[in-house]
Amino acid sequence: MHRRTFLAGTGLAAASPLLATAAPPVATASQARLPSLFSRVSFVTDGLDLDTREYASLLHETAQAGIEADWYSNGGVVAQLEEKFAGLLGKQAAMFVPTGTLANHIAVRGLAGDDRRVLVQAESHLYNDSGDCASLLSGLNLVPLAPGEATMPLEEVREWVERSTHGRVPMKVGVISIETPVRRLDHRMAGFAQLQRVSAYAREQGIRLHLDGARLFNLPQHSGRGVRDYAALFDTVYVSLWKHFNGMSGAILAGDAAFIEGLYHTRRMFGGSLPRAWPGLALVGHYVDRYAQDYAQAWQAADRLFAALAGHPGFVVRRLEDGTSRCFLSVAGVSASDFAQRLAEHDIVIAGARPDTGEFAMDVNPTVLRRPTEALVAAFLQAARG
Amino acid sequence: MHRRTFLAGTGLAAASPLLATAAPPVATASQARLPSLFSRVSFVTDGLDLDTREYASLLHETAQAGIEADWYSNGGVVAQLEEKFAGLLGKQAAMFVPTGTLANHIAVRGLAGDDRRVLVQAESHLYNDSGDCASLLSGLNLVPLAPGEATMPLEEVREWVERSTHGRVPMKVGVISIETPVRRLDHRMAGFAQLQRVSAYAREQGIRLHLDGARLFNLPQHSGRGVRDYAALFDTVYVSLWKHFNGMSGAILAGDAAFIEGLYHTRRMFGGSLPRAWPGLALVGHYVDRYAQDYAQAWQAADRLFAALAGHPGFVVRRLEDGTSRCFLSVAGVSASDFAQRLAEHDIVIAGARPDTGEFAMDVNPTVLRRPTEALVAAFLQAARG
Amino acid sequence: MHRRTFLAGTGLAAASPLLATAAPPVATASQARLPSLFSRVSFVTDGLDLDTREYASLLHETAQAGIEADWYSNGGVVAQLEEKFAGLLGKQAAMFVPTGTLANHIAVRGLAGDDRRVLVQAESHLYNDSGDCASLLSGLNLVPLAPGEATMPLEEVREWVERSTHGRVPMKVGVISIETPVRRLDHRMAGFAQLQRVSAYAREQGIRLHLDGARLFNLPQHSGRGVRDYAALFDTVYVSLWKHFNGMSGAILAGDAAFIEGLYHTRRMFGGSLPRAWPGLALVGHYVDRYAQDYAQAWQAADRLFAALAGHPGFVVRRLEDGTSRCFLSVAGVSASDFAQRLAEHDIVIAGARPDTGEFAMDVNPTVLRRPTEALVAAFLQAARG
Amino acid sequence: MHRRTFLAGTGLAAASPLLATAAPPVATASQARLPSLFSRVSFVTDGLDLDTREYASLLHETAQAGIEADWYSNGGVVAQLEEKFAGLLGKQAAMFVPTGTLANHIAVRGLAGDDRRVLVQAESHLYNDSGDCASLLSGLNLVPLAPGEATMPLEEVREWVERSTHGRVPMKVGVISIETPVRRLDHRMAGFAQLQRVSAYAREQGIRLHLDGARLFNLPQHSGRGVRDYAALFDTVYVSLWKHFNGMSGAILAGDAAFIEGLYHTRRMFGGSLPRAWPGLALVGHYVDRYAQDYAQAWQAADRLFAALAGHPGFVVRRLEDGTSRCFLSVAGVSASDFAQRLAEHDIVIAGARPDTGEFAMDVNPTVLRRPTEALVAAFLQAARG
Repeated sequence: MHRRTFLAGTGLAAASPLLATAAPPVATASQARLPSLFSRVSFVTDGLDLDTREYASLLHETAQAGIEADWYSNGGVVAQLEEKFAGLLGKQAAMFVPTGTLANHIAVRGLAGDDRRVLVQAESHLYNDSGDCASLLSGLNLVPLAPGEATMPLEEVREWVERSTHGRVPMKVGVISIETPVRRLDHRMAGFAQLQRVSAYAREQGIRLHLDGARLFNLPQHSGRGVRDYAALFDTVYVSLWKHFNGMSGAILAGDAAFIEGLYHTRRMFGGSLPRAWPGLALVGHYVDRYAQDYAQAWQAADRLFAALAGHPGFVVRRLEDGTSRCFLSVAGVSASDFAQRLAEHDIVIAGARPDTGEFAMDVNPTVLRRPTEALVAAFLQAARG
Repeated sequence: MHRRTFLAGTGLAAASPLLATAAPPVATASQARLPSLFSRVSFVTDGLDLDTREYASLLHETAQAGIEADWYSNGGVVAQLEEKFAGLLGKQAAMFVPTGTLANHIAVRGLAGDDRRVLVQAESHLYNDSGDCASLLSGLNLVPLAPGEATMPLEEVREWVERSTHGRVPMKVGVISIETPVRRLDHRMAGFAQLQRVSAYAREQGIRLHLDGARLFNLPQHSGRGVRDYAALFDTVYVSLWKHFNGMSGAILAGDAAFIEGLYHTRRMFGGSLPRAWPGLALVGHYVDRYAQDYAQAWQAADRLFAALAGHPGFVVRRLEDGTSRCFLSVAGVSASDFAQRLAEHDIVIAGARPDTGEFAMDVNPTVLRRPTEALVAAFLQAARG
Repeated sequence: MHRRTFLAGTGLAAASPLLATAAPPVATASQARLPSLFSRVSFVTDGLDLDTREYASLLHETAQAGIEADWYSNGGVVAQLEEKFAGLLGKQAAMFVPTGTLANHIAVRGLAGDDRRVLVQAESHLYNDSGDCASLLSGLNLVPLAPGEATMPLEEVREWVERSTHGRVPMKVGVISIETPVRRLDHRMAGFAQLQRVSAYAREQGIRLHLDGARLFNLPQHSGRGVRDYAALFDTVYVSLWKHFNGMSGAILAGDAAFIEGLYHTRRMFGGSLPRAWPGLALVGHYVDRYAQDYAQAWQAADRLFAALAGHPGFVVRRLEDGTSRCFLSVAGVSASDFAQRLAEHDIVIAGARPDTGEFAMDVNPTVLRRPTEALVAAFLQAARG
Repeated sequence: MHRRTFLAGTGLAAASPLLATAAPPVATASQARLPSLFSRVSFVTDGLDLDTREYASLLHETAQAGIEADWYSNGGVVAQLEEKFAGLLGKQAAMFVPTGTLANHIAVRGLAGDDRRVLVQAESHLYNDSGDCASLLSGLNLVPLAPGEATMPLEEVREWVERSTHGRVPMKVGVISIETPVRRLDHRMAGFAQLQRVSAYAREQGIRLHLDGARLFNLPQHSGRGVRDYAALFDTVYVSLWKHFNGMSGAILAGDAAFIEGLYHTRRMFGGSLPRAWPGLALVGHYVDRYAQDYAQAWQAADRLFAALAGHPGFVVRRLEDGTSRCFLSVAGVSASDFAQRLAEHDIVIAGARPDTGEFAMDVNPTVLRRPTEALVAAFLQAARG
């Protein structure tokens, strides 16, 4: 059972080195009362949403096979991950940072140097959900562009770059920071051509570029552009370790070797050098290798699920034109809470309905592979009928 | 001649205490080659645009009558000015600050306290022309609202106040700072009713309010509202001393006594406590007393001038609906540079023509009273004809 | 074997709830080549110095018994720990912080408020090893007192408090931060009476007090004063979770409820709210409960060890008058590297000899309980003889 | 009368260009009741301590001869002064700054760059009397060395440079800032050889050097080293304009052209670009040219005065080994307040007696030249006898 759901959840072949050392846990009396491991299908998560038993069990297996500890977030499995991500992103170097908030912050802080204006999206995580850290702690002026939009139009960029140089005290825009996909906008993504134009303009102007790619690894599935294609447009790239890759915490910040090298002290100054980071990230290397495949398979399954549901009266599936992992489901004839409650009985988790539209936001991720699609369809139909 | 132009420029009656000690300067051989004192009519200034000879001469006269020196910008004529402006603005206290840049900065810094978001107009001096001091030095996040507008719509204010509280790290908007009239927008003013609405909302929300009223004393002439009416909507008010009131530098920041008291150390920390401030501001007290009257008379004269010019073919005068000291003049049939050059020969100064419209921006101020209106009309017509 | 060393290392009785669910790991072929688990005796660590296999194994066992996950470092096992430490320290509340660097920083930042001078020991971690975070990021002026000393003399405190108020811009000392024991000074401790005097003076002056008690839980053994006695002298107390208590990362900051409450946003702003903190700290609650007893037993064993060694020619043990966990050993007639190397063959770890004195710094901790004292004595003698 | 005291006070020859245009003021009835101009002898000032009438009168005269106005502290007489001081100090460029507080601040801020530790004297103005601006606003860590001393010993410098690089987060000392003479230590001066050693070491280490030379121009008289000799040891030098040179405010900051160029925006950002600075500094150029000569003559007169007094019983004169403009006088047999009061009747100003020693601090400056030495001796003797 354990092995099966683990496989399904990760798309791992039985020959995986991780699994090779993974003995199924012995069922004890107390465990019999607990929910099964690795069986939940969740539409509110990016990754496998491992609970403490699941995670600790996998960490134990992995440690038996060998995990090299880091020391103050340097070396060991941390260094291995840094090297792996630098390679995946096509950058010279990468550094572990405990949170995305800090990764974005020290990236723009470092890139800005003496040019203290930073153009950001009005809807970005950095502008809305980071406690204004870049202003409060680093004295940067973050200029919020394009309210309501997932992209950053070149026209607005150019206008603010020019306006900044014409103040009585001329200011230079030092950095443009772009988040894509945008969490606050249902994970909608910026158009690649738009990004190319902004990047080309910025480089012409000597402005540095940062990519908040917390969920960057979802983009290729939807845009046809590789993560390296995106990363190449930016000087630095942040990717989350705990969203797609089942870390418990952590982020990667990748860029030029000279730039990243200088940030180790900054990370420590911010209190971001965990004495031992390995327990939260030792599984990441395993999952990152197969994420593209897992996510693609998850969408194949999800597409079948949504197609099947859409064929039933009362079910409507709405996709976003520039969407990535999220689409929307509405179900007529049943209260939202009843619907969610009945799915929960099938160990299927969905978010609450949106107050304005009544729709359920459905986030597609590899947990959808833990159950045959037909079983999921059946569960959804049953939940709708009561 | 000196006496006459000085009178005209200031609206002083002959019995003014200042004039009582003002002996006309002895004309010397070298002075004979210099332009006459106090005779220039300028459409590119807010005040009398005193040159060094004029200013030093008036300062000397004033000092003979007695100027009490300040000590590190405290006491003496500085304290007298602070008291005078507190009274004019209906505030408990006021403090001299050497520049408006610093006055705005320490006001919003102090008002913000721990609530580090500050809503400002995208077109404001604080956002565009202050080197991002509030972000760089005080770690505030200035959110620029309403690009292109002279006012600050309540709807945008409310949207950002609410959005700020809903970030993952809830942020409180601590201050709303409004500039009116707006220098970058040809001194256009915010509507009083709009200001009232924003002020009422802010106070309901516990948000503090700062008024960048560098040119506040021009507003009553155009809106029918007194400077105290404006000041009453805000916790702190900055007024420039060197624009309307013929100081050489300096600003006043007025507010509650407890708030202002705490700022003396801040001013000093910023290096803003001039060891002796009196030479730059000793004339201000004189001019502020009569500014409303001078400015009203200046507009009466200017209205006559513009009306007379508009009656001539080729001259077009354009006024702004929400304008204050500035209107626009266009003149057909003559090159802008010839026109300006010929006026200069009459000791009349105008700005260069705007590249986009060809118009001359005309700033109305008391220097227009230094010449009979008919003489000005004649000079303009002559300059147009060549 | 596993059980025995685990017991020895922790002083756990067999009836411990943790052990009750801890099945001994199945030895596999590959493990046979690995070093035994839980057997190392280390004189260079504060806690058990668990390696990745050991830690992951214990975490797995603990998770089987149930670990409640946190969410962004809030709730679950994090909240349980916070409550436990608040109780132990006699404070109203406590907050998890990922590193001691950040814990010290946000404590003094928060306590300082508008009074920006902070008195610290010249030898403290905050002043020397934190990248000047409090100055660079929070604009505090840290004044370093008493170079070379483990304490903070009241006379120096008073001198700087008074000097600060007499500058041309009077400054208020807002916080006194004291580290004890002091890492940089071989874990020497400040005298309790001295701390009492400084605390009384500070409170009289309205100055807030922070205790960097990374290793606070060692003090009672050496000073006879309880951790609550120390904590009562300070407004806030930081204690490390990964030094004595076998967390992999993390710190606790305890203080008044109102103060701690306000810091949750600060922690997040700094990027210090780990999405899931539990993997690094889920064992801490277990170890903290018995730390005092474990450490006392460790010193009983260490005292026997050092006494036995001191009875042999060539061995000299030097204790510090105000010392805590560290004393010094010198061994004649053998090279330092040979000595250390031979101990390593017994799975005993010691630090390199000090270049100046040739002494080995010996840090006493519960790993000393993993081996009978006689066995340790024998190993040391053997290592000295070669 | 005016002419005479002015001459005496400044050592001006009658052919001075300034005087050539300076007509004596017409005595009016109201002036008859006022104290004479330019007659006060003061031992509590650095310069001539001009009152408002005196200053305004000289400014008026100077303006008649021509003062070129600055615009936002750029150009005109400001640029002339900048060029003059750059030349006197042997630096490529110089910039006017309104206060010494700001001059020191932006110098160390700019020199520090990314190396945020700044070594300062514990007794320096920057550390004690500037509101901790460098920490609060620029996030620098100012490390206070050598409490109680006027110099900065190389040993302490080296110790802190090395200690800083060995923290867990290595910090680089970016700047060493030295004040000499030291205002808080009775204007005692640092030894030139000591300065040379510190400068050589700093340059070897890549550490930048700033000289707070507010009263630098007094040093040559006492050390035999020229102002350029001092300036050559430092990257930047600040000199006060209002202490020796009878400005009303203002400072000069001199250094490399590239460095100074970048500071114009910084000055403006800080609110330190006065719209018109000329009224406070238009006399400075005149006085700076003859300061060395005036100060030397003042000391010749003072030496005669003190020698004469020391020959009378009850008078004791105490000089400081490393003193500059200040020595101390004690007078037996008369109360301090009576003594000061009686001198005031002779228009001679002295400071209050020191509570600890009963001595009067006597600051020597060119006002001592306004009265024949014999007259001063007589006045002092009379004041002592009552």
